[in-house]
Amino acid sequence: MSVLEIAVETLFSKDFHLLQALNAADLGCVASPNTCETLELQVYLNDLPGNDFNTLFKGLSSKDVVGNKCEEVSSYVMGVPGSFHGRLFPGNSLHLVHSSYSVHWLSQAPKGLGSREGLALNKGKIYISMTSPHVVREAYLSQFHEDFTMFLNARSQEAVPNGCMVLILHGRKSSDPSKIESCFTWELLAIAIAELASQGLELDSSHMQEKDKWVRGEKLAKAVRAFTEPIISKQFGYEIMNKLYDKFTHIVVSDLEAKKPKTTSIILVLSKICLLCFAANFGTSPMWM
Amino acid sequence: MSVLEIAVETLFSKDFHLLQALNAADLGCVASPNTCETLELQVYLNDLPGNDFNTLFKGLSSKDVVGNKCEEVSSYVMGVPGSFHGRLFPGNSLHLVHSSYSVHWLSQAPKGLGSREGLALNKGKIYISMTSPHVVREAYLSQFHEDFTMFLNARSQEAVPNGCMVLILHGRKSSDPSKIESCFTWELLAIAIAELASQGLELDSSHMQEKDKWVRGEKLAKAVRAFTEPIISKQFGYEIMNKLYDKFTHIVVSDLEAKKPKTTSIILVLSKICLLCFAANFGTSPMWM
Repeated sequence: MSVLEIAVETLFSKDFHLLQALNAADLGCVASPNTCETLELQVYLNDLPGNDFNTLFKGLSSKDVVGNKCEEVSSYVMGVPGSFHGRLFPGNSLHLVHSSYSVHWLSQAPKGLGSREGLALNKGKIYISMTSPHVVREAYLSQFHEDFTMFLNARSQEAVPNGCMVLILHGRKSSDPSKIESCFTWELLAIAIAELASQGLELDSSHMQEKDKWVRGEKLAKAVRAFTEPIISKQFGYEIMNKLYDKFTHIVVSDLEAKKPKTTSIILVLSKICLLCFAANFGTSPMWM
Repeated sequence: MSVLEIAVETLFSKDFHLLQALNAADLGCVASPNTCETLELQVYLNDLPGNDFNTLFKGLSSKDVVGNKCEEVSSYVMGVPGSFHGRLFPGNSLHLVHSSYSVHWLSQAPKGLGSREGLALNKGKIYISMTSPHVVREAYLSQFHEDFTMFLNARSQEAVPNGCMVLILHGRKSSDPSKIESCFTWELLAIAIAELASQGLELDSSHMQEKDKWVRGEKLAKAVRAFTEPIISKQFGYEIMNKLYDKFTHIVVSDLEAKKPKTTSIILVLSKICLLCFAANFGTSPMWM
């Protein structure tokens, strides 16, 4: 049983007044939760306004995404364009919030990545690499702190008392953020960008790697493209994206022998405790535990 | 003051229990209602899954669509993909339903447009024309009756007691549905399709109409393209759409001297009366008045 399924079961064991429909929000648009009860399920799929909601909605209309476990539940799916760093929903409207591998994205490039003289402190990198100075690590941490606080504040206003939140984040075992387990994707992408920039020769296709390895490499490269292209293309332009990710695929395939490091995830299951439930009208604030 | 504004004001004069956010649905994605109160506004924009929600959402993020009258109202806008001939929302969740020039669209081509021998009874036409036999008119009426009943049934389940519905429909003054006031657009489009099919010569651009007339004609043609292209392209393919609507624009401009007939609209303002409000547990059904 997944963490999400346990969270949904726990929700039903709680006492919600006037609960007619379970309002669930998926921040980052991953597959939706399923549960077997007679009440109705209202699912909000959120992503930035620039994302491709058309394809998402066309896929939804084939009924694959919601409710394959128990078809007797009526599900109503809506798309919510906007940044989850701010408010997305009316107050006291959400029973369940779910976000999978999305909350680690920052709302903007960290402030303070340039020196007083205007020099780039993290030259040629868009992540914390081994060559990044300490001040760059601090800048990233500070931006995440600011963003995650905004995220928690917005959700605490939107969730009903006793409402539940399940967050899955990229984690790491090492305290060092520049270790390969955190930077694997970005390191390979940086190599592809550097190769493209130096106008290096194309890889010789007569040395094409064995098919199985190629298929695995291509699959990984496609997955990486899905979440990195919006950022990378903003920097370098859409025109060279096919060329860049072709190059990246070749590098990933070549690198498969070195093996992808195991990734670590952090799963948070939070419940909104609200002092207002116990002592009404004292003006206290909602809290997460 | 528009009908929609009056409907919103009337809503606020009614007694809604536990009303924290005003849930308003716009079926057919036209501009959203505004109102000045301290509560929050949740606006659902609905259209078929195949429509371009991406462009709609990008436009929304520029904050032009919602709340230009009173910025102190927090508005939360969501997109709802699906057909309004079926259920789109959980039960008892909508305070206001709005649909402007959308409800007259049928869910499918009317049944019974072919004879027992399989001959097309409305040959070469996708609307009620002067040449359409009586049985074709009956088929269209019957399909509308079925669709509108489904529409009312779905909305009656979704609306809260006392909830309001504002519908604007294309109407006509004549009892004859084939009169020019109803068929203007389709007649001109039919001419364009016929001309294209006969591979007729392009209009001579040396006889280009005066600029003002051309601009007006182009504007009208664009508006017609917005709502007819999804249907027409399904029938004839996307490839020839630019050619067809170029042809159509020329015909509209040439026809502007004959003048567009005045259109008639029907505005319905409905309120959900619910016998359950007065006599609970008798199993009675909601009604519109």
